[in-house]
Amino acid sequence: MAVGDSPLPPLHPVAGVRLASGEAGIRRTGERDLVVLELGEATRVAATFTRNLFRAAPVRIAEAHLAAGAPRYLLINTGNANAGTGAGGESAARSNCQALATLAGCRAEQVIPFSTGVIGEPLPADRIDAALPDLLQAMTADGWAQAADAIRTTDTRPKGRSRFLALDGGTVTLTGIAKGSGMIRPDMATMLAFVATDADIPDDLLRRLLRLAVAESFNRITVDGDTSTNDACVLMATGESGVQLDPEGTDLTRFREALTLLCQELAREIVADGEGATRVVSVRVREAASVAEAERTAFTVAESPLVKTALFAGDPNWGRILAAVGRSGIADLAVEAVAIGIDDVAIAEGGCVSPHYDEAEAARRMAQESFTLDIALGRGDHQATVWTCDLSYEYIRINADYRS
Amino acid sequence: MAVGDSPLPPLHPVAGVRLASGEAGIRRTGERDLVVLELGEATRVAATFTRNLFRAAPVRIAEAHLAAGAPRYLLINTGNANAGTGAGGESAARSNCQALATLAGCRAEQVIPFSTGVIGEPLPADRIDAALPDLLQAMTADGWAQAADAIRTTDTRPKGRSRFLALDGGTVTLTGIAKGSGMIRPDMATMLAFVATDADIPDDLLRRLLRLAVAESFNRITVDGDTSTNDACVLMATGESGVQLDPEGTDLTRFREALTLLCQELAREIVADGEGATRVVSVRVREAASVAEAERTAFTVAESPLVKTALFAGDPNWGRILAAVGRSGIADLAVEAVAIGIDDVAIAEGGCVSPHYDEAEAARRMAQESFTLDIALGRGDHQATVWTCDLSYEYIRINADYRS
Repeated sequence: MAVGDSPLPPLHPVAGVRLASGEAGIRRTGERDLVVLELGEATRVAATFTRNLFRAAPVRIAEAHLAAGAPRYLLINTGNANAGTGAGGESAARSNCQALATLAGCRAEQVIPFSTGVIGEPLPADRIDAALPDLLQAMTADGWAQAADAIRTTDTRPKGRSRFLALDGGTVTLTGIAKGSGMIRPDMATMLAFVATDADIPDDLLRRLLRLAVAESFNRITVDGDTSTNDACVLMATGESGVQLDPEGTDLTRFREALTLLCQELAREIVADGEGATRVVSVRVREAASVAEAERTAFTVAESPLVKTALFAGDPNWGRILAAVGRSGIADLAVEAVAIGIDDVAIAEGGCVSPHYDEAEAARRMAQESFTLDIALGRGDHQATVWTCDLSYEYIRINADYRS
Repeated sequence: MAVGDSPLPPLHPVAGVRLASGEAGIRRTGERDLVVLELGEATRVAATFTRNLFRAAPVRIAEAHLAAGAPRYLLINTGNANAGTGAGGESAARSNCQALATLAGCRAEQVIPFSTGVIGEPLPADRIDAALPDLLQAMTADGWAQAADAIRTTDTRPKGRSRFLALDGGTVTLTGIAKGSGMIRPDMATMLAFVATDADIPDDLLRRLLRLAVAESFNRITVDGDTSTNDACVLMATGESGVQLDPEGTDLTRFREALTLLCQELAREIVADGEGATRVVSVRVREAASVAEAERTAFTVAESPLVKTALFAGDPNWGRILAAVGRSGIADLAVEAVAIGIDDVAIAEGGCVSPHYDEAEAARRMAQESFTLDIALGRGDHQATVWTCDLSYEYIRINADYRS
């Protein structure tokens, strides 16, 4: 189950990036479960990882290897998160990095590992090693769509976005893929995202661009409020276009906006494919005293099981929304100043139902696959939007049954 | 659906308290929906209310009336929360208090109103007024069980506990009733609890006893993490037994423990009747650096939808528990020091599965209606227990359908 049709759009090759996907037999289903992504030598890489203190072995190794510099390969497996696997998990991940490095003629530290899937089962490292030679033979610049497919776990469909961006310095390409459908919330929950560009971006700037884009995209989504042990978002800049971005350049704003938009589209795709989701809802909180306040309020509403079951029912139950706003931790909130709407339909104001409230119209809006819960706090001019989905029977089924 | 059989035990009369219940026609079903509880003149009352900033009209009025002193009547209706009802809601509640006061010959400020039920619909105050004369005729010291039944909303069964307590100064009675099954979490969520004793307790001490008991009972339960607009817990001491409790007395500890235990039993009953609950689980966090840390960790685990769906499935998915512990906000947690068990069955330690793990035995424990998730943090000697239930299809059904 997922919200709407969302065929994978064309994913443009990024000069300096080649990929291959294959079957290592980690998933029981015999689907593709392994991706190798190769980066040109001049590529700069920035990454952000889960803030969960239980960090899977590949997360710890990926951070260390990125710190060592000059990354050349990403090695991504699905079907097994290599999390909660102790010292054995670390050696498994390290041995995979070494195996790929030996085949490719680089150092093990130049291989960055990523794993997603079931927690607590030993990673079948030998099967990954065995699959690597064929993958290295199959590397191609056109491998993005197949990679988007191969990194899925409970995702019902692959997720990718790609665009050309005409800058003053020339045209650059931005291509990204992502996976994740449960255990989603801020700080990169059960989510992997890999975004590449052929722009030439210095390290500091690349890290800043990633941080800004993630703050307004992947860190603004929630499916179930949980945060996984393995999440990562990687931004890679190969420089092969020859188009340089620098902190003072006029192209920077346009690039930042394009990157943020691409990440938002991928993030929204993750929510639309949220476990059991039948609707994608933007929870927009306006007129807040700060962005942090808007974000906290939006998350409290977006994560409330009572709000989410009302979204599933298509029920404009504004009492549950008011109650969630009221417990979101704003000490001096004036209840009378709060207004709530669905898209442009006013539903509540002054702490009670709006005099203009049209329940039939509100129910029609909520019957859509996608709409906006609009919450005005009457305290300032800051705002934040969080994307969430409804809570359905299917969510329970998936998570009561899922072990692989 | 509810966990286990739990017939209402005998509820002993409390000298100085009389009750009556009746049908005011607020609920569509024609069930009892109105309770009047009368207090002897010397009764002292302490109460704690929801911390949700959206406070229903009766909550605001109850606080003001209690502050005015000398309460004589509690007026409790179900079927309608009188929340999100604006100025009209306040006048409705005030007029009900006045109507009861006129009939009973006291001041309106001596009537304390409580409402629970659907949010945002006008309270049919006239129907309540019309039902009052019959109720006042029917007041009886034996009305506790009927009152426990009448205050239910989505509760599948009435909840009450009662005991005699032999103190050095003489024997006192403690009797309490509660309602609540969804929107439950700390700070009195969609929960009403009324506990009375015939002990003689000064105001300050009464407030302290209530605070201590609530902190370890009603504020340690969660069904869905939501907090309602109407919650209240009221502790009434009529003094009619002539047994005096004072801050220095030896009887105080015994009374405090008995009150806390009674509140814990009522709280656990609320979780056992949690919307869609099939299991009641105690989440005990030990070896924490502080009680607050233990409590926060326990709540993070107890509220995780992924943990709760695993509880529903009877699946000892320790990876989800570890992941929840890891995001609970302890900055310097040493993952290797954490141990997790189900009852006395070790399942995880050192950040991975326990070498002694017996999955079949763990699954047998989780198949029980009630068990303990035991989490040791290895950081100190503080602990806290939170009671939660699983997340089932039935929770979705109830909350996607419920509007009345």
